Amino acid sequence: MSSRPDDARPVYLDHNGTTPVAPEVAEAMWPYLTEHCGNPSSATAAGRLARRAVDDAREHVAALIGASADEVTFTSGGTEANNLAIRGVTAALRRAGASPAADVSSTVVTSAVEHPATSAPMTLLAGEGWDVVTLPVTRAGHVDLAPLPRDHVAFGSIILAQNETGAIQPVREFAASVHAAGGLVHTDAAQAVGKIGVDADDLGVDLLSLAGHKLYAPKAVGALYVRRGTRIEPLVVGAGQERGLRPGTENVASIVGLGRAAQLALSRLADDAARMMSLRDELWRRLSTAVPGLVRLSPAQNCLPNTLMISQPGRLGREVLEAAPDVEASTGSACHAGIDSPATTLVAMGCDDGVSLGAIRLTLGRATTSADIDRAATSLVAAFRHVA
Amino acid sequence: MSSRPDDARPVYLDHNGTTPVAPEVAEAMWPYLTEHCGNPSSATAAGRLARRAVDDAREHVAALIGASADEVTFTSGGTEANNLAIRGVTAALRRAGASPAADVSSTVVTSAVEHPATSAPMTLLAGEGWDVVTLPVTRAGHVDLAPLPRDHVAFGSIILAQNETGAIQPVREFAASVHAAGGLVHTDAAQAVGKIGVDADDLGVDLLSLAGHKLYAPKAVGALYVRRGTRIEPLVVGAGQERGLRPGTENVASIVGLGRAAQLALSRLADDAARMMSLRDELWRRLSTAVPGLVRLSPAQNCLPNTLMISQPGRLGREVLEAAPDVEASTGSACHAGIDSPATTLVAMGCDDGVSLGAIRLTLGRATTSADIDRAATSLVAAFRHVA
Repeated sequence: MSSRPDDARPVYLDHNGTTPVAPEVAEAMWPYLTEHCGNPSSATAAGRLARRAVDDAREHVAALIGASADEVTFTSGGTEANNLAIRGVTAALRRAGASPAADVSSTVVTSAVEHPATSAPMTLLAGEGWDVVTLPVTRAGHVDLAPLPRDHVAFGSIILAQNETGAIQPVREFAASVHAAGGLVHTDAAQAVGKIGVDADDLGVDLLSLAGHKLYAPKAVGALYVRRGTRIEPLVVGAGQERGLRPGTENVASIVGLGRAAQLALSRLADDAARMMSLRDELWRRLSTAVPGLVRLSPAQNCLPNTLMISQPGRLGREVLEAAPDVEASTGSACHAGIDSPATTLVAMGCDDGVSLGAIRLTLGRATTSADIDRAATSLVAAFRHVA
Repeated sequence: MSSRPDDARPVYLDHNGTTPVAPEVAEAMWPYLTEHCGNPSSATAAGRLARRAVDDAREHVAALIGASADEVTFTSGGTEANNLAIRGVTAALRRAGASPAADVSSTVVTSAVEHPATSAPMTLLAGEGWDVVTLPVTRAGHVDLAPLPRDHVAFGSIILAQNETGAIQPVREFAASVHAAGGLVHTDAAQAVGKIGVDADDLGVDLLSLAGHKLYAPKAVGALYVRRGTRIEPLVVGAGQERGLRPGTENVASIVGLGRAAQLALSRLADDAARMMSLRDELWRRLSTAVPGLVRLSPAQNCLPNTLMISQPGRLGREVLEAAPDVEASTGSACHAGIDSPATTLVAMGCDDGVSLGAIRLTLGRATTSADIDRAATSLVAAFRHVA
């Protein structure tokens, strides 16, 4: 199996960093980058065609998360979707009187293992006077809901699937508790959508973010689900696109790509997940058998099917990967790459520096094959031995 | 010339609404939607390749506007660039103490003919307590600088080329006056870049917005020029992309497209402008000769070379266009299309409703031919006569 012509390229195991664009998605986009370049806001024939394409994509994205099309707002990606949700809802609450100046309902709840696209807006909220409660996580990386306030909660946001460890968080229980305490609920589902079934109603959330480039669509397109009737203010203001919630000429080609990616994900999800989980478990079996003392940082239960974060304590993950040229992977969140400081998520899990700095995140994709896993395992085992 | 095979498609004269993506641009983007899908924030080989592509594009965009690469921040388009400039600079000023609460330097200056991507943020500033001064325009549509305050100005923003009439505004003089009054200066150059020479230093502005889809690049990618040393806060917060000024995984393919479009614009600008102006003037000659009482709303001097806004007073522009199936054009800003209310810009110019509601915006592009203009003129003349 080592005779495949693409063996010269390393095995890509950084799908939580970004996915390749699916061929079907790129093909769906191409006409909107060549022939059909109308502005959806224009009444011209070209404009109407672009409008229909955006509307169709909205239906597909809604279907993937069990929503209605009018509950889907397209954004420039997951980061903007999270900012819009967190800051847009709290701005609307403030306007409605639930402001930090009032002595009730000024609590906002989040967790210690959020992506910067959530934790940075939360820091802004704290600066505005909101009382931000940060829930801790267990050693397995799951959010501990016990410290969640029982009342006076205005808003809560936790991640659905943690980008580094793959831990799937108790969002349904979080949503029920925050609702019971009087607040609205958002979840960052960027890493979850397309890897596990995600249904906004089943989760019980009011807002949900997703990102194209974790889903085989291009970078810099995403969507925010906003349950009908939820009060939210725009982050960017201008003309009336996306019903005023996200002005600016629509990203037609990428939105078409996101719609196609949502269709593909919906039809393939169960098969993809089962195959990735089987391959991921085989990879762990190979590595844990061959490398003494290897730690699995991804939880054994309630974990994304494609994610395996490991560490050999005392070894730098970066150096191990440098010694494994057949593998492309990350030492942690791609957003922090290049910095040898322990990942926030791992610190929150109680990992010491030796474990944290050894972390390697191996994340499989739809196209990952058994041969890829064999080659990656061989290369990684050699690298662990080489560095030792 | 009526035997050309593409005669079946209407002549596209809505280039101020949106431009087609240049074939060279789509070709440059394609590898980044298929083969090269790395995350620029990742240390993998794929990530480094994507990072270099973004860096190269930044150089090309900088070259087009006479800037340095480190002064260019990529955004999700012109609307976001304007929001970032206007709200980011005033947020930084407020933090530095020049707040609306202080009694000096709380004045912000804009004009009556801004795109909603500027006027809507200005409305937010007014709500925050900033004293927003709106400069009027002449009957020709040029901003009148006479009422500009002589001191205590914190910030000013006017459009470089007006999207509806094509009027080129006195941004250099505006910038000098606002600087003399103590303020920072932004210009929305989305309609100008690629149609006329734009040099940030020559204009003397501190910030300048541009939009890909006015420049033969795709929709939903743009850039904000921020002069080195200008204090500005981010609009969207998250990880550290774009040096923290615009977090979120970079729109690699579209950024590559914007870079290629900038290269093309720089090399073709003079030829394109001369040809478009000649064809535009021929179109006006044909229409004004054949249609009695036709009014030219675009100024004769200081106007974009591609823009011709006209009106036959008392006739609805929308109905004229409906009777001219060979022409795709807009009755005003695409952002307001479909609403029969007079465009803000025309009201500001002192046009009565009869003139404003008759407005038709004909905007030529790089690929517009003499045959196109002949066909468009014939169709429009017949339409004017048909409605009459």
